[in-house]
Amino acid sequence: MGDQLDQFKEYVREMGKLHAATALLHWDQRTYIPKGGHEGRAEVLGKLSRMSFELLVSPQMAGFIEGLDRPEVKDGLGGQDRAMVRVLGKEHRRRKAIPPDLYEQFVITTSKAQTAWEEARAKSDFELFRPHLEKIVEFARQFAEAYGWKENPYDALLEDYEPGMTARELAEIIGELRQELVPFVQRLMEEGKQPAMDFLRGEFPTEKQEELTLRALRAIGYDFEAGRQDTTAHPFTITIGPGDVRVTTRFHSHDLLSALFSSIHEGGHALYDQGMASELRWTGLDDGASMGIHESQSRLWENLVGRSRPFWEFFYPSVQELFPQLEEVRLEEFYRAVNLVEPSLIRVEADEVTYNLHIMLRFELEVGLLNKRIEVKELPDLWNGAMEEYLGVVPPDDKSGVLQDVHWSAGYFGYFPSYMLGNLYAAQIFNTARKEIPDLEGKIAQGNLSPLREWQRERIHRFGRIYEPKDLLKKITGEGPNPGHFMDYITEKFEEIYQL
Amino acid sequence: MGDQLDQFKEYVREMGKLHAATALLHWDQRTYIPKGGHEGRAEVLGKLSRMSFELLVSPQMAGFIEGLDRPEVKDGLGGQDRAMVRVLGKEHRRRKAIPPDLYEQFVITTSKAQTAWEEARAKSDFELFRPHLEKIVEFARQFAEAYGWKENPYDALLEDYEPGMTARELAEIIGELRQELVPFVQRLMEEGKQPAMDFLRGEFPTEKQEELTLRALRAIGYDFEAGRQDTTAHPFTITIGPGDVRVTTRFHSHDLLSALFSSIHEGGHALYDQGMASELRWTGLDDGASMGIHESQSRLWENLVGRSRPFWEFFYPSVQELFPQLEEVRLEEFYRAVNLVEPSLIRVEADEVTYNLHIMLRFELEVGLLNKRIEVKELPDLWNGAMEEYLGVVPPDDKSGVLQDVHWSAGYFGYFPSYMLGNLYAAQIFNTARKEIPDLEGKIAQGNLSPLREWQRERIHRFGRIYEPKDLLKKITGEGPNPGHFMDYITEKFEEIYQL
Repeated sequence: MGDQLDQFKEYVREMGKLHAATALLHWDQRTYIPKGGHEGRAEVLGKLSRMSFELLVSPQMAGFIEGLDRPEVKDGLGGQDRAMVRVLGKEHRRRKAIPPDLYEQFVITTSKAQTAWEEARAKSDFELFRPHLEKIVEFARQFAEAYGWKENPYDALLEDYEPGMTARELAEIIGELRQELVPFVQRLMEEGKQPAMDFLRGEFPTEKQEELTLRALRAIGYDFEAGRQDTTAHPFTITIGPGDVRVTTRFHSHDLLSALFSSIHEGGHALYDQGMASELRWTGLDDGASMGIHESQSRLWENLVGRSRPFWEFFYPSVQELFPQLEEVRLEEFYRAVNLVEPSLIRVEADEVTYNLHIMLRFELEVGLLNKRIEVKELPDLWNGAMEEYLGVVPPDDKSGVLQDVHWSAGYFGYFPSYMLGNLYAAQIFNTARKEIPDLEGKIAQGNLSPLREWQRERIHRFGRIYEPKDLLKKITGEGPNPGHFMDYITEKFEEIYQL
Repeated sequence: MGDQLDQFKEYVREMGKLHAATALLHWDQRTYIPKGGHEGRAEVLGKLSRMSFELLVSPQMAGFIEGLDRPEVKDGLGGQDRAMVRVLGKEHRRRKAIPPDLYEQFVITTSKAQTAWEEARAKSDFELFRPHLEKIVEFARQFAEAYGWKENPYDALLEDYEPGMTARELAEIIGELRQELVPFVQRLMEEGKQPAMDFLRGEFPTEKQEELTLRALRAIGYDFEAGRQDTTAHPFTITIGPGDVRVTTRFHSHDLLSALFSSIHEGGHALYDQGMASELRWTGLDDGASMGIHESQSRLWENLVGRSRPFWEFFYPSVQELFPQLEEVRLEEFYRAVNLVEPSLIRVEADEVTYNLHIMLRFELEVGLLNKRIEVKELPDLWNGAMEEYLGVVPPDDKSGVLQDVHWSAGYFGYFPSYMLGNLYAAQIFNTARKEIPDLEGKIAQGNLSPLREWQRERIHRFGRIYEPKDLLKKITGEGPNPGHFMDYITEKFEEIYQL
């Protein structure tokens, strides 16, 4: 078996290098590629994706999985090797479950759907997108059947983003959370004292904003020797290879906070990838345990740290130094302003209190579509109804309603819950960190963020995908997903800020 | 045969896409990669190179070449298909001629040799590099044997850079050229009036230099929608894929001319690649006809245009606008300064009159080494002797002598002559352009450079590698390599500048 294991690991190494090349092609496509290069780039990316696909479903890989992914063999392996077999075995089976012709049709359909979605959104006309979305929902159902499921076809799709999570479990979490969150938002709005925001209007030169984002990234411990920050329309984090984890951000001269929190968010993702053990290099395990766990690391830095009072105690002088117009604005006022709560129409602009409500309604619609309980044509009305119920606001048009997100046009069914889970895991993990790191808040207030980062590295980052997300969460916090920590955090923080 | 031809072309397309990915990995390695990414990048590049190698020497490729690269088949093919068979057939045979073990040893040896060369150059101690170079020369001899040759083993190596060129022909060209060039340089130095250079001392802010290089690139017609300019330690041009040809440059605040001419030089290379017919996309023909022809295009723009009086008539106002310290310097003085001739020690800093002399001595040493007429240990003395004879200057140490170039440490024997051929071809081609484009100088003086660029595109660029360099040169100029054009150009231009 030793021979086969070695060959398998060598095979996966080579796959990893191909992924690294693909990652750079993607990064360049979104940063520096000239306009004329896009058409050729799409062909090159197509070629490399096909090569990766072929390596994953090849007879050779099938032989490895057959030989190694059996309890009597797997149980004898070390933890890392066992995880490799688990992860690659699952990917192999899932990719093989979809007939190549079906997958090709899906790629063509989503490619057309994205163009249609862009037009529909621009014209705020759901009807233009509807026939495409109907096809995509049909693909999602077929994929779920192909992958197989026990309780809910949605579970089969969730597996791509949050292995081991189920629609039932999500529904329970959401039920519990919504019951507390909806009245809490109402209470904040009706009885709370809103922060002043006037000093955040004005011009904030983008060169200075860039300097501010670099200071923030350095402060949280992002390693610029193993990464870099560039500018793109939509910020993202990408691992190009070992020792090379890049982030991007974008600047708006009228908005001081957007680039800053975006950089901290992406920096949180990047710390995860930069913190993986070097043994995971080229093993297929050098990635996050799940989308939700990955998102928890970005949210932890963006919100639990970046929007906390201790953080601003040490970081606010940097802001005032770079933007003298804030000289007269007190720390406390600024801290309250970065924590404005405002039920709004657009998910990506939502604050940390209302954000999860946006996810809940998407989750419920997706599950309904998958289970044929609802039809695509009903989406706009259902969307608007849920917005009113959960957030108390109604989109005036589809553009700021059901058409706002790119995910469905790309076929990403099952993706949205990761955002919510990220928020919940972040609060749960931070709660443990506070218990285990003496005087964490005091350290943060002094700008000493490395104890927290080192704790995360030790407890989370270095493991990559070795553990399933639920096992990892239990290992870190001693329990499974528990939305109570999020509610406790939100309640304590915002009751104080909103003076309730 | 049609089936096999189609399969062959499809196979080569896929190879082309892999090359495009490799090109981006190289570009990023020299521009934006963070320090920590280098080790992983080397592995990824190793992987992709191995894949390209395997595709080139595969049994499938052997079958294509066997079936298609036969006169009775080839002669029935269209020009482009025939060229594909010629080019890929030759690459296939040459790569297969080197046993993989020998090639691997060569890669390891040159990798170590480059480190040793860097140290030797830093310490100006040839002895540190000598044992490595001895091994590399031995590899070069073995490669020449493996490739096969008739008259001179050097011919076998030249084939990589200038297909169809021979050591005998080069020796003839060099003999003719040196006879005129050496006394001409002496005459310039002894009897000519040197240009004033004082106004080129001082500070030239790099942001303004960057603006100047962008204006120059736009002026020569470099297409920024199909490329971009970045900054690197050593400037280069690279084709990432169709519609994506990038250049780099580097800025020194005390040197106004270095970045500018570097950008024009790389821009000349880039115009070649940007000008290739779209039918050549992914055919393996989307590259220069040879290194010498490629260099002719960069030299033509850098020297024949960029250091001409008409060019400065239209471009000098840009320089004065960006650098007001030159307001009082007359065009004529500036024009003379950019054409300073100065026999010097370092090839890459040499002017267009003395440059070829640096190549001649390298060629003679390389041929001597290959033919075992000279030994590696004799190189420093032979180098210094030739420098004195050809240029009248003697290196004070090996660092500014035999150790100055990276080529030998990388195993690039046969590469140097391309630089000289580029200079000669440029003069020969420009001579034809002057005859065929009415009032070319007048057009250049008005900043109208597109007639020249279009002429080059029509006569040279669009063909890529369809023609062998000699056939292409004959097609353009009506004759084979003729150093007389270079001597005529140099003599006329510099007798006037140096007032002889």
